[in-house]
Amino acid sequence: MKAIPLSIEIIGLLAATLTTSSFVPQVYKIWKTKSAEGVSLTMFLMFFSGVILWLFYGLYIHSVAMTVANVITASLALIIIYYKFKLK
Amino acid sequence: MKAIPLSIEIIGLLAATLTTSSFVPQVYKIWKTKSAEGVSLTMFLMFFSGVILWLFYGLYIHSVAMTVANVITASLALIIIYYKFKLK
Repeated sequence: MKAIPLSIEIIGLLAATLTTSSFVPQVYKIWKTKSAEGVSLTMFLMFFSGVILWLFYGLYIHSVAMTVANVITASLALIIIYYKFKLK
Repeated sequence: MKAIPLSIEIIGLLAATLTTSSFVPQVYKIWKTKSAEGVSLTMFLMFFSGVILWLFYGLYIHSVAMTVANVITASLALIIIYYKFKLK
C-alpha cells in the first residue's frame, strides 16, 4: 500500500480528534450524573466491536489517523460499557 | 491511490456495519423512552462533524467501506441530534 499524503492525513487526524474526543463529554455526563441509563448498552457493545475491526483496517492501510483514533475510541467506549454495568 | 484489496474491504465493511448499525439501538431507545436526556448533545455534535471529515477522507482514499459507513452514520447521528432538540 502507498502511504496516504500528509494533507489527507491531516483531515483524517482532525476527523479522528472530533470523533474520538466526542466520547469524552458522554463519559463526563455519565460520571457527573452517576447514571448511564439513557445510553444504549447494545450500541456501545456493537460500536466497540466495530472499532476493533476499523483498527485492523487502519493498520493494514497504514493510516496513522485511523489507527490512533480507533485505539483511543475503543478505550473510551470500554469506559462507557464499564459504567453501564457498574451503575446498573 | 491504489485500490484497497477486497479482503481488507470486507473487514472494513464488517467494521462499518457494526459501528454504523450501533446507532440504531440508541435511536430506538430514544424513540421508545421519548427521552434523549442521558445522551450528550456535545458528543453527537462533535461526532457528526468528525464523521463528515471521515467521509472526505474515505472518498479520497477510495474506501468504499468508509464512504458508505460515514454517510449512514452521519444520518443516524443527525436523527439523534434532532431528537435531542425536539425532546428537550
